[in-house]
Amino acid sequence: MYSFKNDYSEGAHPRLLEALVASNLEQTEGYGEDHYTQRAAELLKEKIGQKDAAVHFFVGGTQTNLTAISAFLRPHEAVIAASTGHIATHETGAIEATGHKVITVEVSDGKLTCEHIQRVLDAHTDEHMVKPKMIYISNSTEVGTIYKKGELKDLSEFCKVNNLLLYLDGARLGSALTSQESDMTLSDLGSLTDAFYIGGTKNGALMGEALVICRDSLKEDFRFHIKQKGALLAKGRLIGIQFEALFRDNLYFELAEHANKMASLLQFEIQKAGYTFLIQSSSNQIFPILPNEIIKKLQANYAFHIWQKIDESHSAIRLVTSWATKEEAVWHLGGRFSNLPGEV
Amino acid sequence: MYSFKNDYSEGAHPRLLEALVASNLEQTEGYGEDHYTQRAAELLKEKIGQKDAAVHFFVGGTQTNLTAISAFLRPHEAVIAASTGHIATHETGAIEATGHKVITVEVSDGKLTCEHIQRVLDAHTDEHMVKPKMIYISNSTEVGTIYKKGELKDLSEFCKVNNLLLYLDGARLGSALTSQESDMTLSDLGSLTDAFYIGGTKNGALMGEALVICRDSLKEDFRFHIKQKGALLAKGRLIGIQFEALFRDNLYFELAEHANKMASLLQFEIQKAGYTFLIQSSSNQIFPILPNEIIKKLQANYAFHIWQKIDESHSAIRLVTSWATKEEAVWHLGGRFSNLPGEV
Amino acid sequence: MYSFKNDYSEGAHPRLLEALVASNLEQTEGYGEDHYTQRAAELLKEKIGQKDAAVHFFVGGTQTNLTAISAFLRPHEAVIAASTGHIATHETGAIEATGHKVITVEVSDGKLTCEHIQRVLDAHTDEHMVKPKMIYISNSTEVGTIYKKGELKDLSEFCKVNNLLLYLDGARLGSALTSQESDMTLSDLGSLTDAFYIGGTKNGALMGEALVICRDSLKEDFRFHIKQKGALLAKGRLIGIQFEALFRDNLYFELAEHANKMASLLQFEIQKAGYTFLIQSSSNQIFPILPNEIIKKLQANYAFHIWQKIDESHSAIRLVTSWATKEEAVWHLGGRFSNLPGEV
Amino acid sequence: MYSFKNDYSEGAHPRLLEALVASNLEQTEGYGEDHYTQRAAELLKEKIGQKDAAVHFFVGGTQTNLTAISAFLRPHEAVIAASTGHIATHETGAIEATGHKVITVEVSDGKLTCEHIQRVLDAHTDEHMVKPKMIYISNSTEVGTIYKKGELKDLSEFCKVNNLLLYLDGARLGSALTSQESDMTLSDLGSLTDAFYIGGTKNGALMGEALVICRDSLKEDFRFHIKQKGALLAKGRLIGIQFEALFRDNLYFELAEHANKMASLLQFEIQKAGYTFLIQSSSNQIFPILPNEIIKKLQANYAFHIWQKIDESHSAIRLVTSWATKEEAVWHLGGRFSNLPGEV
Repeated sequence: MYSFKNDYSEGAHPRLLEALVASNLEQTEGYGEDHYTQRAAELLKEKIGQKDAAVHFFVGGTQTNLTAISAFLRPHEAVIAASTGHIATHETGAIEATGHKVITVEVSDGKLTCEHIQRVLDAHTDEHMVKPKMIYISNSTEVGTIYKKGELKDLSEFCKVNNLLLYLDGARLGSALTSQESDMTLSDLGSLTDAFYIGGTKNGALMGEALVICRDSLKEDFRFHIKQKGALLAKGRLIGIQFEALFRDNLYFELAEHANKMASLLQFEIQKAGYTFLIQSSSNQIFPILPNEIIKKLQANYAFHIWQKIDESHSAIRLVTSWATKEEAVWHLGGRFSNLPGEV
Repeated sequence: MYSFKNDYSEGAHPRLLEALVASNLEQTEGYGEDHYTQRAAELLKEKIGQKDAAVHFFVGGTQTNLTAISAFLRPHEAVIAASTGHIATHETGAIEATGHKVITVEVSDGKLTCEHIQRVLDAHTDEHMVKPKMIYISNSTEVGTIYKKGELKDLSEFCKVNNLLLYLDGARLGSALTSQESDMTLSDLGSLTDAFYIGGTKNGALMGEALVICRDSLKEDFRFHIKQKGALLAKGRLIGIQFEALFRDNLYFELAEHANKMASLLQFEIQKAGYTFLIQSSSNQIFPILPNEIIKKLQANYAFHIWQKIDESHSAIRLVTSWATKEEAVWHLGGRFSNLPGEV
Repeated sequence: MYSFKNDYSEGAHPRLLEALVASNLEQTEGYGEDHYTQRAAELLKEKIGQKDAAVHFFVGGTQTNLTAISAFLRPHEAVIAASTGHIATHETGAIEATGHKVITVEVSDGKLTCEHIQRVLDAHTDEHMVKPKMIYISNSTEVGTIYKKGELKDLSEFCKVNNLLLYLDGARLGSALTSQESDMTLSDLGSLTDAFYIGGTKNGALMGEALVICRDSLKEDFRFHIKQKGALLAKGRLIGIQFEALFRDNLYFELAEHANKMASLLQFEIQKAGYTFLIQSSSNQIFPILPNEIIKKLQANYAFHIWQKIDESHSAIRLVTSWATKEEAVWHLGGRFSNLPGEV
Repeated sequence: MYSFKNDYSEGAHPRLLEALVASNLEQTEGYGEDHYTQRAAELLKEKIGQKDAAVHFFVGGTQTNLTAISAFLRPHEAVIAASTGHIATHETGAIEATGHKVITVEVSDGKLTCEHIQRVLDAHTDEHMVKPKMIYISNSTEVGTIYKKGELKDLSEFCKVNNLLLYLDGARLGSALTSQESDMTLSDLGSLTDAFYIGGTKNGALMGEALVICRDSLKEDFRFHIKQKGALLAKGRLIGIQFEALFRDNLYFELAEHANKMASLLQFEIQKAGYTFLIQSSSNQIFPILPNEIIKKLQANYAFHIWQKIDESHSAIRLVTSWATKEEAVWHLGGRFSNLPGEV
């Protein structure tokens, strides 16, 4: 049984583990005030091209989102997200638990546009309604799509004009930035968003996300919020060490490229076999629509999520690849399609 | 410079790291639904002697406290803690951030008694005041003291009679249970508290705390709360693997015993040199009262916290030992006292 | 300028004012523990036919909703509402501010059905999502429609089977129950819902809503929640006195009948003049679709809300009547339509 | 049975009722956007001497406190209060329910000094603790004492230097400002605090408190917060009308003077009879220490709170007077003391 269920089925890339082992018995300051964490933060600021950015490390994505969003908003302010957005669907109301409404916009491709947001603004006219203040986007999105630079630029300008904050959830940022379709870099994110995070958990780390706060007014007292949300890791260096290993060379992007390539191979084979996809993806998640009987057969050897019922006899499944996905497993699964279309 | 600043300056005990390395590329379910985590939970339930207990793993203590306390209380209910209690002092208002008042009782030894609690109950008489519903205690406490079994039994019975919940913060539970003064076991905690947690971060793990819920009515839907607080680790097995390694043999208690022994050695030498202590401790934290000039000299070679000003020329310092504390460092620091009392 | 903008433009029915004046200098207990409030509560329990119901008085509807909903739900539980529901649209995120997600279902007639709810339940499958626990309905709804007894019965049974709570917002309950279309009584609400409130503010009172809690498990400690939300009125009797005056005789329902009759007259005249309505209403809110130029003309003499743009030249407006609406104003406005259709 | 239990046992001063009756059938805008409310706000700004102040009306004190404090603070910020402060004792954790810790300072006279606050600041040194940001004081205090202008000036300057907000709870502000001991005016409050409220409920109104926000940065979007907390009264004019009646002439202060005078008479007689007081008060609450047997006798004819046990045979009681306290009742109770000292 090989799993294409998600991108957090394995541990960490061996180089990260080695770095943890090597530093294991060194004594350092706690709570991320050690030299590893500081070095990792400096490294990221350099890559992003924002010397003044504030970088904070978290253990996981929901934790990052809830801490950042609740720190950035005043009590009456709300965040706008796509209906597929992680904060809207799969965080058990974590944002609402901090007191803020998540306003959702129905979308099919996981992406928000200025038009979507304008519609929300138009509908929120006075103090009897929440005040939309932040835009939450994911890149890559929860359905595998990515934002092009022009799209992000449009959103960024729209936010500036309308006095909104732009926050980007980068749980799968590696996959997004190394997607063949992508024309963005880390440094574009630094200049176009108010804050974003770089996901480590789904791209090579045991755990860890790096929140980058670009807008000055959002930086003040931020460590208080981290601590209050239970997110200040005692041995904070554990994340710093991993991020240093991911970004010292190009490892982070190499790992993401591998994940994308594996997804791309699968996509190619499945397409060749005549199947279509729920949505066009160039990242590490693909959503082929298959006959239910074929899905059943595949389940004997592969783990994956059934994403959505299409009709009585077809469903879309989700196949996720990662830095750890073995090429032979991909060839094997792909082979099932190429050899026996309709008979996988 | 050797640090006695805290018990989270190093990484993990090598056996835990080895277990992480060994399992690294295995594919498992996420979010703690893997076999490692399940095995670790079973192991703990066995050791505690409560087959029906619910065991959940967290990354850190503040996270554990805020998730458990907010899940267990209704909105108008409050938790009573010693004035030195971690939730009252060093969690940046994390409990209040979930909506609950922490009622503090001024104590000098870090411990709550039934009399303290009765006084709080007497003062809370109607719906214009919060309703005291939970007792929060730490073992060992934040000032190094421990609860004896009789004391915990008294609290437990008091809570039952008064319809209160008893919650024990075991960030340093290893040190408490292996203290020479202690007459308690894990299984006593299982029968005397409604919930408690077993701290891993401060006793050999990279990170990780195991929350044990003993009272049936507190178990329902608990994973929703974990997720909502951003505390459901994607690669949940990381903690399960470590707890399995800590509890398969007796490693957890061996590590704690080492920490206690190191503190005890230090205490002996400092006492021998004629110094007194802020508080009598039999765990891994000691609080000697020293002349300021000696403190200054020690700071050249040792890192530690200055805990409290005593008078113009004296202060209490905090020395913390851990599973990783090197015996030679202890001998060296102890030697400073034994060789040259007053001249350290 | 006569206003059909809402049903809270005037003060209170004179009989309520008289009762307030008559009792003004009497000394009573504060916080609703006076004999007026107790008598009003007894009176309501009698009318509802639930001797064991708990009745609590509030100043306003948002306050009632937020106190009740946050008291009834655990932190991870959510409430399902129609997309038009007051808690979803016009309470500035008050429910989210207490930590709970409001799950909305897109509807055109303001009403929830079992099918809607089943769809939500089907989409919430595990602890990564909030747990839907309460159904929020309004009667009459925010778009003037009402629930028939059979519909409420279906919802009630569905909730019992699915372990959900059924909560009814009765800000305009008087209008709903006296609507020509209605086949329900107060006592039906008592047996079919877990809790509901009877709106006074919009039907004859200066201010005041009576929350009726029918389900035993929701009653405990409820006054703590009222106080904590700032909703325990010092001179609580002010609301008790008004509710006694509203329900001693049939005043509450007489006032609502008047409001409905006024709306019905308007509806009749507008319909006669050939205009259609956004939605069929039998309560005190109607939503005629009119040419924009006619709307403009009407605005010279009447205040009302423009509810929704229909096309380039037409909009739906909202006309609201109340216990205080003067019949002559209705005749006058109606006359504008009957005399000069298309030329109002 | 005559009640000295509190200052909210009766309704409103007749002139306020008359104003309500006179305006009753007038149609106005809802939610405090009517001309009465606007006029009342203008009137207050004039009296305070702050043309740019923002004035918002609330129904009650807890509601005012929780809305203002939660609007003014960021999530990690805390408010410092005297141990006797209303928010710390008698609001059922309303502030904590909005997420903020209330840091209390043990005091005997209900008043905070700069020294108290400095001690709190010294103890809060980093992000592991909440950040003290606001000072909450009451005037008059919950134990009847008042702040002198010099004391408030000291606090105000201390707050400016330390970047703290100064918030004054004026539930009994009328009594404080008309106290013989007082050397302050409304306009002093406007220049020395960042925000304060003028209590109507306890001084002549049916209900109502006027929050005055002096500091510009606290004004933005404030109505959103009012609505979100369920505190935006539909018929907002009800409070505006009453405040206009209270402040058009000098009624507010006349009523408070009466209350103070009644308390003063009682105090004089009780003192003459040889009894002492728990605390020296010049406002409308006094706290005589009496033999328990005399308390028992008084309870046959008078309602009041037993405040505190002093020793086995003595207790302090609280006697509260108000604008509505009848002079003959005071003479009668006072007479009990003057005629029969020890034999009341």
